[in-house]
Parts: sequence; structure tokens; C-alpha cells
Amino acid sequence: MAARKTAKTAEKKTTRKKSAVASNVTARNAEMDKLTVELIREAAKRVHQDISKHSKPDLSFPVRSLGNVSYAGSKGYFEIGRQKKVRTLTVNTVKSFAQTLRMMGLSKELVENNDFATKRDAYYQSKNWEEARFDEQTESDTVMDDIEALFSVRSVSREQLRFVPDEHGGAVAGRLVVLDPDRETGVVERIDCTRFGSGAYSIPSTVEQLSFETDAKFILAIETGGVFQRLQSHKYWQTANCILVSMAGVPTRSTRRFIRKLSDDCELPVYAFVDCDPYGISNIYRTLKVGSGNAAHLSQFFCVPQARYLGVTPQDIVDFKLQDATHPLQEVDKKRALDALKNDPFFQSHKEWKQAMELLLKMGIRAEQQAFAAYDLNYVIREYLPRKLKDPKTFLP
Amino acid sequence: MAARKTAKTAEKKTTRKKSAVASNVTARNAEMDKLTVELIREAAKRVHQDISKHSKPDLSFPVRSLGNVSYAGSKGYFEIGRQKKVRTLTVNTVKSFAQTLRMMGLSKELVENNDFATKRDAYYQSKNWEEARFDEQTESDTVMDDIEALFSVRSVSREQLRFVPDEHGGAVAGRLVVLDPDRETGVVERIDCTRFGSGAYSIPSTVEQLSFETDAKFILAIETGGVFQRLQSHKYWQTANCILVSMAGVPTRSTRRFIRKLSDDCELPVYAFVDCDPYGISNIYRTLKVGSGNAAHLSQFFCVPQARYLGVTPQDIVDFKLQDATHPLQEVDKKRALDALKNDPFFQSHKEWKQAMELLLKMGIRAEQQAFAAYDLNYVIREYLPRKLKDPKTFLP
Repeated sequence: MAARKTAKTAEKKTTRKKSAVASNVTARNAEMDKLTVELIREAAKRVHQDISKHSKPDLSFPVRSLGNVSYAGSKGYFEIGRQKKVRTLTVNTVKSFAQTLRMMGLSKELVENNDFATKRDAYYQSKNWEEARFDEQTESDTVMDDIEALFSVRSVSREQLRFVPDEHGGAVAGRLVVLDPDRETGVVERIDCTRFGSGAYSIPSTVEQLSFETDAKFILAIETGGVFQRLQSHKYWQTANCILVSMAGVPTRSTRRFIRKLSDDCELPVYAFVDCDPYGISNIYRTLKVGSGNAAHLSQFFCVPQARYLGVTPQDIVDFKLQDATHPLQEVDKKRALDALKNDPFFQSHKEWKQAMELLLKMGIRAEQQAFAAYDLNYVIREYLPRKLKDPKTFLP
Repeated sequence: MAARKTAKTAEKKTTRKKSAVASNVTARNAEMDKLTVELIREAAKRVHQDISKHSKPDLSFPVRSLGNVSYAGSKGYFEIGRQKKVRTLTVNTVKSFAQTLRMMGLSKELVENNDFATKRDAYYQSKNWEEARFDEQTESDTVMDDIEALFSVRSVSREQLRFVPDEHGGAVAGRLVVLDPDRETGVVERIDCTRFGSGAYSIPSTVEQLSFETDAKFILAIETGGVFQRLQSHKYWQTANCILVSMAGVPTRSTRRFIRKLSDDCELPVYAFVDCDPYGISNIYRTLKVGSGNAAHLSQFFCVPQARYLGVTPQDIVDFKLQDATHPLQEVDKKRALDALKNDPFFQSHKEWKQAMELLLKMGIRAEQQAFAAYDLNYVIREYLPRKLKDPKTFLP
């Protein structure tokens, strides 16, 4: 009975925190769609006018490279700079110019038909574009990335252009109801994430249409499928009153966007629980929180600046006496840590991280999040997480 | 309204095909648990008796290698042979002997507590085992694989030993209700896979406790997340009356086991929809259907011998005029295809596959499942799948 009762209780309490009601989300999305189509029309119109006036049309895109990135402390994520590259229509650029316009045309069609395309779909679609067809997917990917960067300046994301990732989303379980309107009928499906048994809710490629109801206190973003399954099978979300998200390594775009949107809409803190090694810290956590350098045009949509690092921290290795369950740092780990300290604006701007990384290097060891199994398999549920959660102020920034 | 109505209709109809009722599954699992514990006790008792008699105890394991594998045409999967390796307790083997017994002891505890451990969990657990602790996870993995092979001879799988994979399961959507009893209370959760909006059901690491209700006609196992999302967002399962499973590349253990169990329990055919290239055919499809050579001790639980290959077939490239949307075969593709023809008992025993592979090599091209987007994004839904499904007899074996 317990499980059913909890599910019901969760449903009753969910009036407390919820994002905009589903119909408002649908209305907001319809507006966003209108804006997207307008922006595409506007860009096309400029080109058309230039041609009518017998002058050479051009399109200008933000430069997508580490050199054109800044870390906006106040915003909390990597931001793309003001450098632009201009593509002018000439004999040499006529093909890529035409391809860019066709790709924008495809996006307009997709928005109007409420459909979507993956990068690969878009590549194959171009096989219809006669002279403008792409020969390789790398070419169509580059054009799509350019268009994404172009529209990101107007706060329109790739998902709003209806270009969606091919990759799998993460898994979710816990005190959350996801509201998802049907593509065709608009009827809203209520998906109760307390009701998946030992399974979970698999995040779709695009999450813009979703809204949420929850009475959870926080989101726990977990690195490994193993720990996620343990917390889910033992219904940890029930005792801790939270939402579990499995990132399965570096989180995919849709997983990051889902966490960000859920956290924004329901004002929930996000705590990351990853391995204590330079990969867990500087690749997984850093990507989740501030984005990655060479895709800074995405950060405004995809990073989760409100995320905090629950653990495993280097200090946890000492406090929880994990030394016997650690591994020595490999050369690649050391290189990654030194690189973060030397070159990464995120680590440089937080002295707590500087100290933590230095402690890790000094100890010369790393600890996985499953290392607590050295005590017993459920130590992480019984002891580690409760002790840490008592004082979120000690989490790393 | 349509979506809700359909969901309701689906629920009404689900009396048609269902696996054993949940309570029976729970009873069957309890019996299996009893058997597992008995087998572990039995093995330990033999060792204990030998020692009491002052003779050297030993444990004998099936040899896990390609040389000890046969392809049983009638059973439809790779089977492990009769070669054994014997581990006798001597001064030199005392540590690994003790580790094997401790690992079996851990399994017994897990079964008794209805808990589970991943490979990594088990490695860390051993840090408690004093002299018997493992120094590297590769060592504990090998011991676990040995135990798995040992018990597979008695038809007990690793999941029944409560050692579960760390990896992510696949995603599922469509006309299926999954019944999952709560670990602690036994209360059964009904998970309706028609009710996930654009999202999906994420398969748990272990699926032995699940039972099913469905009125679907078949299971469609899909290679890419992109095609899965397209079919799911357009509710293809509704028109085609089926269950969609996203494999996301080579399917994980739990995805394979889920498909196998669902197909067995509900007598549903399984159709695979993958890229037409040697990787899609000989790695993804072949692994799904007959297992892999170096893990033949798993095949009896994990392969899906009833699976058939819907497409994309080499002949489809011709029939659907996909030539313009293909890529040339790379050297690695050719090597893989020739290798399958020359060395793989599965391909050798099916002349349809031999012919198909030869046609592919002759054409020198490969086609991805998203290639149909060259016509239009939903051609796959409107034209390709319906045309193929009219005649499942033409599917490859």
C-alpha cells in the first residue's frame, strides 16, 4: 500500500510548486513559434531586398570558437562574444549561401507543421535540394550550427528552430508530474514520475512543450546509471523529497535543457552527485553548470547556472575515510586538473574550486560515487546523502 | 480528446494478450530466488565437505571463449560448449578461490535482502573482505563472469544472482502496460506506455520482476534515438498497433532481456529496424538475435532468437530507390561484411543473409534508416514501414 499512498499524497501536495499551467506553456510556445517564423522571414526578406536592389546580400553569424567566449560571473555561464563572420553572396559562396537559406526554409516548414528534424534528417532532406544538396553530413551540421548561433543572438534556441538532437535523453524518477501536450490534439498527458516502479521516465529529445508540477525540494543530478538505479529502486526520492535525474556521463542536450527548465520553472535547486575526479568535476559538472567553451552560443539555454556540487568532493574522501576505496590519479587526470586550474575561467573564478582541485592533486587519488559501497551497498542512502544534505551551504559552487 | 480516448481503448483491449499475472510472476521469482540460494549453498557445501575430508576442494567453470561456442540452429542462439576450467584450492589459488566464494556469498545476501549490486558495487564491497579484497575492478569482473557462467549451466542468470548492469536501459513507448511490483511492499505499479507524451519508459537495469499486458501485434526494435523519437512523437504505435523500443546502438543487456521477456511472455514477434550497413546488420541485429561469441553463456537469457530483420535491407536500397541517399562502404565496413560471411556461423547458416551481404558488397554502398528523409521526413511512417509490414515473410531471418 505504501507506494500507492505516497503517489496519491504526492499528487495532492503538487499544488505547492508548479510551473505555468500547461495551456499557458502552449500559448507561450505558439508565440515563440510565431517569433521564430518572423525572424526567418525577416532574414530572408533582407536577402531578397538586397538582390532586388542589385547589391550583394550577406548573412552575419557569431564566431563559434573559444576565442569568442566570455564567462559572465553574474549570468553564471559561458557567453558568446561579439565577433561575427560575414557570408556574402559571391560566385564562390553561392552554394553554401543557398544551403543556409534552404536550411532556414526547412526550419520554417517544421515550425509551421509542428514537426522536427534531427541533424541527420536535415542532411537527408537536402538530397531533395538539387544543386543545394549537401555531399557530407559534416557540411550540413556546420550550416545548422551557424543558423543556431545566428538565432541564439535573438534568444531562439535550436529546439525552437525544430532541429532536435539524435541522442538519448536521461532518465527521471521522483516527485514530479510532467505535463506534455499531444502534438496533434493538444490534449495534455500527465506523467507522474512516482509511478514508474523500478523503471523511469525517459526525457524526449525536445522539452520546450513540457510543464511541471512538483512538491520536491531539489533535483539530484546523478552521474552513473548504477547509483541512479539504487536510489530509484529504494525510492530515495520519497524519503528525501526530491527528483532524481540520471545523466549517464556528460549529460545530453535534452537532459541539460530538461534540468534547467524544471529548475527555472519550479525554482528548485539542482545538486550534482558525480565521481570525485577531474573528469566528473571539470567535464560532467562544469558542462552541466556553465556549458562548454566551443558551444557557448548554446549556454543561455542549456547550462544550469544554479547547479551546485554536492559531491563526491575531495574533502569527502577525508571526512568519509574513503582512502581504501580510491584509485591513484592517472596522468590524464592530472593533466585535466592542471588544465582546469590554468585555463578554465570557471575554476579560476571560484577559490573554493581552486582549493578543492589542489587538494585532489595533492592527495593524488580519485574516488568514484560508488566507492561508498565499501561500507555497505546502501551507505550512500543511509549515511552519505543525508549527512551532506543537512548543510547544502558546504556544497562547492 | 483523441489521445485520451485511445489510451482508454488500449486499456480496455489489453485483456487479449497478457503475460502471467503479476502475483504469479512474484511467486515464480520467489521460487527462482529459493533455487538460486540453494545452488549457492550446494556449491559452498561441496567445498566445505572436501575441506572436512582433508581433500582439495575445487570449482569448475565453463570456458568462456569463442572456441567453446556453438550455434544451435534449433535453439536460435550461440550456446556455450562443454569445456570446463577447474579451479582447485592450492597455495597459489587461495586468494581467487576465497574471492569466488565471497562473491557467491554476496550474491546470496543480495537475493535474501532483495537488493542488487552492479559490477562496480561488488568491487567496492570487496574492500571489506580483508585478504580477499580485489585490487582492480577487472579482477572482480572476471570472478563475477565466472560465477555467472557457472550458474548459467543451471539456468540461473546474472540478474537472478542480483548482479545488475551499470548501463542505461533503452526507451519504450506504445501499446503496452508494464506491471512492476514494489521492492518492499509488493504493491504492483501499472505503467501504461501509451501515456508518456513525447517521452518514454526507460527500462530498469533488471527486468525479471516485470509482467506485461498488451494488445499490440509486434515489437519494433529501432536502432537510432532519432527514428524512435519520430515514431513516438507521431504516435506510430497507435496506427500500427505495436510497441516501440529504442536500442540506441547495440542494445544493452537490460534492453535485450526486456525485449526477449516481453516477446516470450506475450508471444509477440520482434522486428528489427536498423541501418543497412555491416555494423547495423552484424553487430546490432546479430547481437540482438543470437548473442555475441564471447558471452555465449548469456545467450539463453539475453538473445532474441524470434527477432526478424525488417530493414533497411540491401534490396530496399533498390526497391525504394535510395541510391542518392547512400554512402560508399568504407574499408572497415567491407572487412566486417567479409568477416561475417567467412567466420560467423549465424550468417553462414542463412542463405538469405549470405545473398543480402553479397548484394551489399556488390553495390558498395550503405544506407542509414534515416535516409528515407530524402523523400520527406515522415516517408518512413507513411510509406516505408506500412509497405514492409504488409509482408513480414520477406523480412530477413
